Amino acid sequence: PDETLEQQARDRIDQLTKPPGSLGLLEEMAIRLAGITGEQTPDMSKKAIVVCCGDHGVVEEGVTAYPSEVTEKMMANFAAGGAAINVIARQTKADVYVLDVGSRARTVPDGVIDCKVRPGTDNMASGPAMSRDEAVQAVMTGVEMARRLKQEGVRVIGVGEMGIGNTTPATAIAAVITGSPVDQLTGRGAGVDDAGMLRKIRVIEQAIRVNQPDPQDPVDVLAKVGGLEIAAMAGVMLGGALERMPVVIDGLISTSAAMIAVGLSERVKPYLFASHLSEEPAHRILLEKLGLTPLIHARMRLGEGTGAALLFPMMEAAVALMREMATFADLGLEGP
Amino acid sequence: PDETLEQQARDRIDQLTKPPGSLGLLEEMAIRLAGITGEQTPDMSKKAIVVCCGDHGVVEEGVTAYPSEVTEKMMANFAAGGAAINVIARQTKADVYVLDVGSRARTVPDGVIDCKVRPGTDNMASGPAMSRDEAVQAVMTGVEMARRLKQEGVRVIGVGEMGIGNTTPATAIAAVITGSPVDQLTGRGAGVDDAGMLRKIRVIEQAIRVNQPDPQDPVDVLAKVGGLEIAAMAGVMLGGALERMPVVIDGLISTSAAMIAVGLSERVKPYLFASHLSEEPAHRILLEKLGLTPLIHARMRLGEGTGAALLFPMMEAAVALMREMATFADLGLEGP
Repeated sequence: PDETLEQQARDRIDQLTKPPGSLGLLEEMAIRLAGITGEQTPDMSKKAIVVCCGDHGVVEEGVTAYPSEVTEKMMANFAAGGAAINVIARQTKADVYVLDVGSRARTVPDGVIDCKVRPGTDNMASGPAMSRDEAVQAVMTGVEMARRLKQEGVRVIGVGEMGIGNTTPATAIAAVITGSPVDQLTGRGAGVDDAGMLRKIRVIEQAIRVNQPDPQDPVDVLAKVGGLEIAAMAGVMLGGALERMPVVIDGLISTSAAMIAVGLSERVKPYLFASHLSEEPAHRILLEKLGLTPLIHARMRLGEGTGAALLFPMMEAAVALMREMATFADLGLEGP
Repeated sequence: PDETLEQQARDRIDQLTKPPGSLGLLEEMAIRLAGITGEQTPDMSKKAIVVCCGDHGVVEEGVTAYPSEVTEKMMANFAAGGAAINVIARQTKADVYVLDVGSRARTVPDGVIDCKVRPGTDNMASGPAMSRDEAVQAVMTGVEMARRLKQEGVRVIGVGEMGIGNTTPATAIAAVITGSPVDQLTGRGAGVDDAGMLRKIRVIEQAIRVNQPDPQDPVDVLAKVGGLEIAAMAGVMLGGALERMPVVIDGLISTSAAMIAVGLSERVKPYLFASHLSEEPAHRILLEKLGLTPLIHARMRLGEGTGAALLFPMMEAAVALMREMATFADLGLEGP
C-alpha cells in the first residue's frame, strides 16, 4: 500500500464536516482502500465473491451434520442463483464466481469453474489430507483466479467457501498455528450435536498427532490438516495482494486461509479486510492474531462469503464519504 | 406485530438452503419485519432517515468541543447534501428529512422542515431544560412526522439527530432511567478533552440534583434534563409503532429517545431495531436495557442517523434472502 496516499486520505478525512475520528472504522477503511488502490476515492463498482468448493475425507469420522453430497447440491444451487450468497451478492451488486477446487462431484455443474485438483481430501485423522504438491496446485488455482478477476476489472474480492465438514480442517489449522487447545477452538460448524462436537475435538486432536504438521511451514499445514478450498482461498488472498486488490475475508474457514496466506508472507496482511465475526470460537482468536477488526456482529455461521458480501455496502459508503462530504472550509468553519 | 406471520416467516426460513439459524440476526430481522409489516417479504424500497435538530442551553457550562452555531451550519449542510448522513443515505437509497425542532438558528435553511418548538433549551444545570408542555409539543412533532412518512409510502424509518452538546442530556436521561453512576455513562461526545469530561460529569450530576426528574415519568425526564430533538425522536418512535413501521435507532442520543418512548409504552419496543454500537459508554447499557442487539460495531460516534442508514442494506438483504433463496425441497434434499 502507498503510504503517501494513505496520509493524503487521512488529511482529507480530518477536513470533512464531522468530529475527527467519529466515523470510526469507516475512516480506517477509506484510508486503507486509498493506499491499496492508489486512488483517493477508488471506484468500487465491480465487486466479486469467489466461492471455493471442496470435500473432506474426514467427514467419515462423523464430525458434521450433513453428508458430502450436499457440497455438490450446493454448487448447483450457486450456479442457479438460489443460495444465500447469490441473494446477498445481488443485493450488494457483486458477481459470484464458484470454483470447484476439490469436490467429490463427478460432473461440475454448468456455471461452476472447474479447477479440480482432486475429488475431496483424504481422511486427515489417519494421514495427510493431500500431498504437498496438491496443496500447492490448489493455492495456485486461487492465485490465478485473483489475476483473472483483476483482468476482468474487479476492484474488490470477497472470499467464501462451501465444503461439508470444512470447519474441522479450519479449526485444525487454527490449533496448529495458534497453539491453542482444540477444545477451546472447536464450534458446532453447520450444527453438529453434543456427541458430534466431542468426536470433532478428538478427531482434530488425532489429525494433528498423526500428521505432526509444522506450524512454521504453511503448505505443510495445508497439506496435512487443510482442505483444497482452503488452499485456493489462501491463493486468492496471495493473488489479491500481488494484484494490489483489497480482499475481504468471511468466517472461520476463510480466516484460516488468511492465516496460511499471511504465514506465506506477512505482506499479504495489508490487503485483507475482516467483515463479520462468526459464532465459531476460533474465528475471534484468528482475527485477533491477524490484527483485523470485524465490523458486522450478526451471529452468522453460514460461510459462502455471505459476511464478506455484507461488508461491501460499508466499504462503498466509506469511499463515498471521502468523495462527497463537505469540508469545514465549505461551511465557512474552522477545522478541528 | 402479527405473531402468525412471524411464525410463518420462521417456518419458511428453516426450509431455506442453509443450516438452521446460520444467518443469525438476519433471520431474526426478517421474522420481525414480517410481523411488523404484515408481509412475509416486505417491500423496503422507500426508506427515510429523520434528522431531528436542537440546541442546548447546557453548552454554556463548557461540556462540548463545538459552539452551538455549528448546529445551524450543519442544518445547512444537510440541506445541501454534504453531510455524512446525506452521503450514506444516497448510498443506501434512503431519503433524508431534516427537522428543526429546537435549534437557535434565527432562520431555518431551505430544505429543512421548520417545526421549531423553541430556540434551544435552557441550561439544565440550573433548572429544567424546557417546560412539560414544550416537551409534549416536541414529542408530537415526531409523532406527526412518522404519520407523514407513512402517508408518503415510506416503509422503514431511521432516526438520527444533530445538536451541539446533546450527549450531555442523553447521558443525563440514561443516568436517571438506569440509575447507573454518571461517571460510568459519560463519554467524550464529539471529542471533549479530559477537563471537559470532568465538567460534563459534574454538570450532569448537578442537573439531576437540581431538577430531580422522576424516572417513572418520561415526559418529566425529557422536560427537565432532555432536549427538543430527543423529544421529537421519541415521538418518531411512538409514531412509527402507531403506524406499524419498523424504526431503526442510531447512537446514544436516539437510544436515549428510545428509552423515553418505551417508558411511555412498552408496546413501542417490538418496532425498534438497533443498528450500531457507538463509542459512548451509555449506549451499550441502554441497548441492553432495551433488549436490542446492534449488528454494526464500527466505533462510530457521529450521530445524524449514520449508523441507522448503514443497517438498511442488511435489512434489505434479510428480506431478499426470505424472498429469493431456494428451499431444501427445490434441491431435492430433506430439510433439517
